Amino acid sequence: MTDSAEPQHDPAALPVDDLRDAWRLLDAAERLDGFRLLGREDAQDFFVGLHTTDQLQLIELSSPAERRNWTRMLAPDDAADLLQALPEEQRAPLLGIYDEATRREVTSLLAYREDVAGGLMNPRFARVRPEMTADESILYLRRQANEGLELYTYAYVLDREQRLLGVVSFRDLFRAKAQAPMREVMKTDVVRVHDEMDQEAVGRTFAEHDLVALPVVDASGRMKGVVTVDDIVDVVQEEATEDIHKIGGSVALDAPYLEVGLLGMLRKRLGWLLVLFLAQMLTVVAMSYFQARIDQLSLLSLFVPLILSSGGNSGSQASTLVIRAMSLGEVRPSDWKRVFLNELATGLTMGLVLGVIGFTRVLSIWPGNEQQFASFSWHLAGAILVSVVGVVLWGTLIGSMLPIVLRRLGLDPASASAPLVATLSDVTGIVVYFSAVSWFLSRALPPLG
Amino acid sequence: MTDSAEPQHDPAALPVDDLRDAWRLLDAAERLDGFRLLGREDAQDFFVGLHTTDQLQLIELSSPAERRNWTRMLAPDDAADLLQALPEEQRAPLLGIYDEATRREVTSLLAYREDVAGGLMNPRFARVRPEMTADESILYLRRQANEGLELYTYAYVLDREQRLLGVVSFRDLFRAKAQAPMREVMKTDVVRVHDEMDQEAVGRTFAEHDLVALPVVDASGRMKGVVTVDDIVDVVQEEATEDIHKIGGSVALDAPYLEVGLLGMLRKRLGWLLVLFLAQMLTVVAMSYFQARIDQLSLLSLFVPLILSSGGNSGSQASTLVIRAMSLGEVRPSDWKRVFLNELATGLTMGLVLGVIGFTRVLSIWPGNEQQFASFSWHLAGAILVSVVGVVLWGTLIGSMLPIVLRRLGLDPASASAPLVATLSDVTGIVVYFSAVSWFLSRALPPLG
Repeated sequence: MTDSAEPQHDPAALPVDDLRDAWRLLDAAERLDGFRLLGREDAQDFFVGLHTTDQLQLIELSSPAERRNWTRMLAPDDAADLLQALPEEQRAPLLGIYDEATRREVTSLLAYREDVAGGLMNPRFARVRPEMTADESILYLRRQANEGLELYTYAYVLDREQRLLGVVSFRDLFRAKAQAPMREVMKTDVVRVHDEMDQEAVGRTFAEHDLVALPVVDASGRMKGVVTVDDIVDVVQEEATEDIHKIGGSVALDAPYLEVGLLGMLRKRLGWLLVLFLAQMLTVVAMSYFQARIDQLSLLSLFVPLILSSGGNSGSQASTLVIRAMSLGEVRPSDWKRVFLNELATGLTMGLVLGVIGFTRVLSIWPGNEQQFASFSWHLAGAILVSVVGVVLWGTLIGSMLPIVLRRLGLDPASASAPLVATLSDVTGIVVYFSAVSWFLSRALPPLG
Repeated sequence: MTDSAEPQHDPAALPVDDLRDAWRLLDAAERLDGFRLLGREDAQDFFVGLHTTDQLQLIELSSPAERRNWTRMLAPDDAADLLQALPEEQRAPLLGIYDEATRREVTSLLAYREDVAGGLMNPRFARVRPEMTADESILYLRRQANEGLELYTYAYVLDREQRLLGVVSFRDLFRAKAQAPMREVMKTDVVRVHDEMDQEAVGRTFAEHDLVALPVVDASGRMKGVVTVDDIVDVVQEEATEDIHKIGGSVALDAPYLEVGLLGMLRKRLGWLLVLFLAQMLTVVAMSYFQARIDQLSLLSLFVPLILSSGGNSGSQASTLVIRAMSLGEVRPSDWKRVFLNELATGLTMGLVLGVIGFTRVLSIWPGNEQQFASFSWHLAGAILVSVVGVVLWGTLIGSMLPIVLRRLGLDPASASAPLVATLSDVTGIVVYFSAVSWFLSRALPPLG
């Protein structure tokens, strides 16, 4: 939204949609050039709509005059986000562009972490007093609008100590009788959030109550600002992106994919890959325990990747489903028993289906024509059946329980990534497979050693 | 938001937060019982805030009178969602509860698919005429508010054919001069969406322009409704959940985890697991080509799980990062070259780091004390180094390119799940590893057969 009531179009200006389409492909200097070609009004819309990182990039290359101009376009909460991203010593000159009142607002926002309600809120909101009539309130709001206030569906009724008494939707305000005082029009059981509430919890509050704006109050009940649902869209996207990146087995990138350089990528991805590689070395140890079996019958080793992957795949499914369900608040740690029973049934059934396919395949197709194989093909097929069931079940259970255990330990459930679950199930898979094989084949082959 | 201007509290009623907390743990009948205990106003807030599936559950068990009462609470767009979920023959009686105008609104919404702009929009929005003054517009909005309209930050300026001429924010409206006509106050370059636009694209339009409401127009430019950003929060959550489920290797559940029964779980999960299991059988074939090598030196088989998992893990990372970047619009298919070069550099570096660790480990720790091993430990270490580099690079490249290829083919990039990428990289991994081993060991061991 713009400050100007009358659209002003400069025919020589760059169409804003052209810049928007090309944006991702431009480097910082080209972006600045393009941005400077926009009409005044388009530039404002465009700048306000940019991510903080992109705003920062423009700001850093711009002249001091431009810097002041652009920063002034931002609402106090967006300005605070931008300032927070700047080094301490560059903040003061930008703060200096604001009038006293705005500077106080921005400074008080800077005190909040970016990911709590106080860091998301807009400190400018429509306020009325309980004794005002509907007519007076509308006049009063018109004056506030003249002072640059965003009007966002609700007006808040505050007492002289700025404590939140109630809320009036514009609809109720507009249809109230002209002389009705706000005290009688307002709704008093207002859903509110605390200024230090984590943004994920704020998002859940929005979802539960189906609201478009939530008042933010401090510890003493004073209203500090409003979080609007459009801020929550960004929060929801961010949190989902973080979960997805972690599920894939990296640290959250925290930046658009194409803007993370080689070093950044390595920082985010190599760590987990190293941990998993080191953990995976246990498979070498596990396999070495069964080397004599492989010496005796090399055929056995051929099935190892198949067996292990069936555990890894079923585990990836289970862990991603449970991680997402926990992020959405559908599953809580106290639900672990229901999840366990769920996955026990699902894992067993899926394991049986895959196991029977493996069983049939060993018997019927391959390598039935070998003389040596014929004598124990049934035993091998049985071992495959049992170990696929065991490994799929095991993968499913650790995949579903690990996120819950992590949450209980105060860690992020999303760290139970697909690769981690696969690695954990691999070591067990080797033991399960070779134990089953040993047991079945002890009936068909001479004992070892 | 409620219709009632004055809060009415029934001291005997169940506190709504108690019901909310217990909701997930209750079965359908208990939910209905709890819901019936709520105060009138709480019941309305609560019902409106429920997911369509939960509303449906209550509706199905309730009496016809309750059914009518509750359905009437819903805004036309939410009512349309609910009706859409009902079997055809149950819709008519519920439609009958509305007055003529509302019924027409709901029926026209039913014509849209749920996941396009038309299916998301609210057909009730604040409208003014271009010739109205600010004072007249505010009076006119007050009348619309009296008729039950939601007032949501903007009023839309329409001509007599309902074509969208411009938009006026309440802020601009309130601070305009009393006699200024809307024609002069309105902004004319209005961002709008087409009624058949897919909800993901609508979400991106919101994000790009940082708006709280978007007007929806039909093919002839007539304004049909407004999509508000609170609807987009749900869309964003849904789309992320779908992506996450697919990345984990299942079909999207489309329902809360704990409400999907065993059969539902199997339907969503077993299909992919079967496909992957069958594809993974190729690893048995691939391994069998190298069985003679394993016969010659069973030691070689011990490293197979380690090598394969390093490819699967790096592939999972790459595919999830690229899938998410594509969902967010950060990466488009035309960016494939940049992604390829990115992943080439990242994959090579990560492969080298892991490879060197594998190399050192083979040489230094295990099993250096075996006489037989000492003669070719350098060759084996070299083979491990080369194959880890090859497998990690390969995993990274197919993980990153597969989502792009799928999008090009018109399929969902998120189908390039972690398990699928791991499976694809496994077969190649076996070939790479045993080829490297054969090449290196041909210098230390007698040739085969």
